[in-house]
Amino acid sequence: MARAQRELHLNIGLNTTGYIEPAWRHGATRLEDINDPNFYLEIARLAHQGRFDALFLSDHPALRTGANTRPFHTIDPLILLTHLAAQVPDIGLVATMSTTYNSPYNLARRAQSVDVMSGGRLIVNMVSSFNPDVAANFGAEPLPPRKARYDRANEFLDVVKQLWTSWTPGAKPAPDGQFWEASTGAPIDFKGEYFSIKGPLNVPVSPQRHPVIAQAGGSESGIAFAARHGEIIYANVLSRQAGQAFRAKLNAKAVEFGRDPAEILLVPGLVPFVADTREEALRLHERLHGAANEEELLAQFLRQFGLDPARIDPDKVLTAEEVMPDPEQGGALGFLLGMVELLRHEELTPRQAIRRSAGHHRAVIGTPEEVAEAIIDLWQDGTVDGYTVQPPRIREDTQIFVEKVIPILQSRGVFRDAYRSGETIRERYGLTAV
Amino acid sequence: MARAQRELHLNIGLNTTGYIEPAWRHGATRLEDINDPNFYLEIARLAHQGRFDALFLSDHPALRTGANTRPFHTIDPLILLTHLAAQVPDIGLVATMSTTYNSPYNLARRAQSVDVMSGGRLIVNMVSSFNPDVAANFGAEPLPPRKARYDRANEFLDVVKQLWTSWTPGAKPAPDGQFWEASTGAPIDFKGEYFSIKGPLNVPVSPQRHPVIAQAGGSESGIAFAARHGEIIYANVLSRQAGQAFRAKLNAKAVEFGRDPAEILLVPGLVPFVADTREEALRLHERLHGAANEEELLAQFLRQFGLDPARIDPDKVLTAEEVMPDPEQGGALGFLLGMVELLRHEELTPRQAIRRSAGHHRAVIGTPEEVAEAIIDLWQDGTVDGYTVQPPRIREDTQIFVEKVIPILQSRGVFRDAYRSGETIRERYGLTAV
Repeated sequence: MARAQRELHLNIGLNTTGYIEPAWRHGATRLEDINDPNFYLEIARLAHQGRFDALFLSDHPALRTGANTRPFHTIDPLILLTHLAAQVPDIGLVATMSTTYNSPYNLARRAQSVDVMSGGRLIVNMVSSFNPDVAANFGAEPLPPRKARYDRANEFLDVVKQLWTSWTPGAKPAPDGQFWEASTGAPIDFKGEYFSIKGPLNVPVSPQRHPVIAQAGGSESGIAFAARHGEIIYANVLSRQAGQAFRAKLNAKAVEFGRDPAEILLVPGLVPFVADTREEALRLHERLHGAANEEELLAQFLRQFGLDPARIDPDKVLTAEEVMPDPEQGGALGFLLGMVELLRHEELTPRQAIRRSAGHHRAVIGTPEEVAEAIIDLWQDGTVDGYTVQPPRIREDTQIFVEKVIPILQSRGVFRDAYRSGETIRERYGLTAV
Repeated sequence: MARAQRELHLNIGLNTTGYIEPAWRHGATRLEDINDPNFYLEIARLAHQGRFDALFLSDHPALRTGANTRPFHTIDPLILLTHLAAQVPDIGLVATMSTTYNSPYNLARRAQSVDVMSGGRLIVNMVSSFNPDVAANFGAEPLPPRKARYDRANEFLDVVKQLWTSWTPGAKPAPDGQFWEASTGAPIDFKGEYFSIKGPLNVPVSPQRHPVIAQAGGSESGIAFAARHGEIIYANVLSRQAGQAFRAKLNAKAVEFGRDPAEILLVPGLVPFVADTREEALRLHERLHGAANEEELLAQFLRQFGLDPARIDPDKVLTAEEVMPDPEQGGALGFLLGMVELLRHEELTPRQAIRRSAGHHRAVIGTPEEVAEAIIDLWQDGTVDGYTVQPPRIREDTQIFVEKVIPILQSRGVFRDAYRSGETIRERYGLTAV
């Protein structure tokens, strides 16, 4: 990874009302907005004005219909991002896709199509899916166990990468009287445990040859997958120590796979609560979680980890063991481990811990200056390479971040003032050409 | 189907270099164009200027690499059409998709996403796939037999239609303090022979509730599928008599399924060869097929039907039996039956027959006036509802058609001068709301 100067990278989450479920009550986003292309176009233009690296869309192919929910995953990410990329230049596109509920050829083709159409701006965030509601939309079989999902995911990426580079139209000139040299598209004849695929892909290499690969999982299987295939890691890192421990584990695994750890960038989630004063920001943090005050926020936090608020002293140190999830559980294990890792490395009371995470990602609460400082802090020493900013309220908090936090990051000289014309997202991230 | 006045409908094919394989030699389209978004944008804008109903993309998820080929199916149709729809208003979008090599939930979601993003402009052209090269990109299993493919296709559409209408966000107001009324999304709990899918879809109904359904197959299974699910039929109809026979068969089947035949529109392929004089147009027709003269075109035609040019008198009537394909063959049977149906209803010599079809669809050869007359002819008496124009050379022949043929159709009062603002493609086709 050869670049003159290390850069801060910032993606921004774009899902429906914003990252924090109850926060919509304090925002202007309404049901009619969340499937309106012009709504997303407005946010994407704001993000472009803020010079974000990329728009990020998480995804589950299922509609959650429980009480007190709001739809969080609706329009297909590749379709929405294609629509936006056609109208907003420069900005990258992160689309989340399941390796469990797609076929490699179709996914490779669609993703490469977006990468070609957008001029090399696509990042695919590969997930193995963990939700039984998703499984039920794809047949009578239950969700495969985690290990089988990750085994499939690994082979899935092996074959997809081969497909992505199977047709290079310009590799040889067309013979006389022919439209093209057909041998520039070569079969891959892949035969694995899960997939048998002939190829070549009928979409050519893109301006960055193929999409950048992002990965989110923080479980052991997730880290192994990240080390083998990931280039951008969207994990939940709640402290310097936890980040460095995660990074060390990831690097060791990457070396096992023969990869240069410098080719794997850490861009964890970050949930900003920004106001003119720190006091206001703390109240905003409570309010956007649907809590009237700190005590309600505390109770909510403890219940989330299966703890009884009546039996826990909010001012006594909480141990990692107390918040440890059952490793056999079916959910997004990596997500729940963020708090465990935080408490392993720092002594924190519940009253302190509640201010460190929001929706499992790192919470930063304060004035624009404090938030900018917090962002620079873990970036400066290389703990992280940047963040995937998840605005609690999509419209309001994106606007505040772009108008108040970004200019500080720019004035400190750590964040770009302008896009470099025509660069691919792989170039922007300083990743080596594939 | 209640509308004041019958309208002529015209779609336009948009695949790579144009419909006729060797025609690229006489056009300006080059290899670097066929994966260039701006190239397609230029054609789409031309089509919009011509007031076409919709852009049409056929598809196979495989790269043909034989000698004398050119890539014909590259960028994923839904991705390319989303890219174009974001920049070109009004015009509809026909995306071809396989029911054999997709899962219903993913396909339903992606298609509905495009329909929502485009304001209700999507038509899905459902095909069951017939190409062993495609099968090899989706596993070790060979292509299922035609009957199994169509059985699956029928159930596929049953479930997809249920998914498309499973979430109507505006159906009930949100309860106090809630973002939405979650019961507006209802599980479909589909359990069929091929699919088991819970639902609801996480994309809501679109401005036209769901995409219009097109279908192409002309085999018996294809006609049954069209009668059950199709709204726009892209068949190959080479004469009035053949068209009326096809229509009668389709109508009878539709009635069996309890459908109103008036809800099924026939919009067959049409390949125009337009020049200032009829003589020039005949030479263009030969040249674009890579034939130096009529004799070469004749030989090409006979070989296509497995006939020996040395043993056939080009001026003696050709019978339907002589061009009958093996019904057990694996290819696109319906396509090959077009010539059979033509010869069943008209006495034609090979020298006459070669001027009636191009790439299995109806060829129209002549001056702009003659081509316009030929289009109006079969439309006027209701044999067809319009055509899917397949320009032999994508750029040149689209331009000639838009600049010379469309104005004649407009001056005769059979084709629109302008789009009606905000209308869905379902409304444009005069189909009843679903």
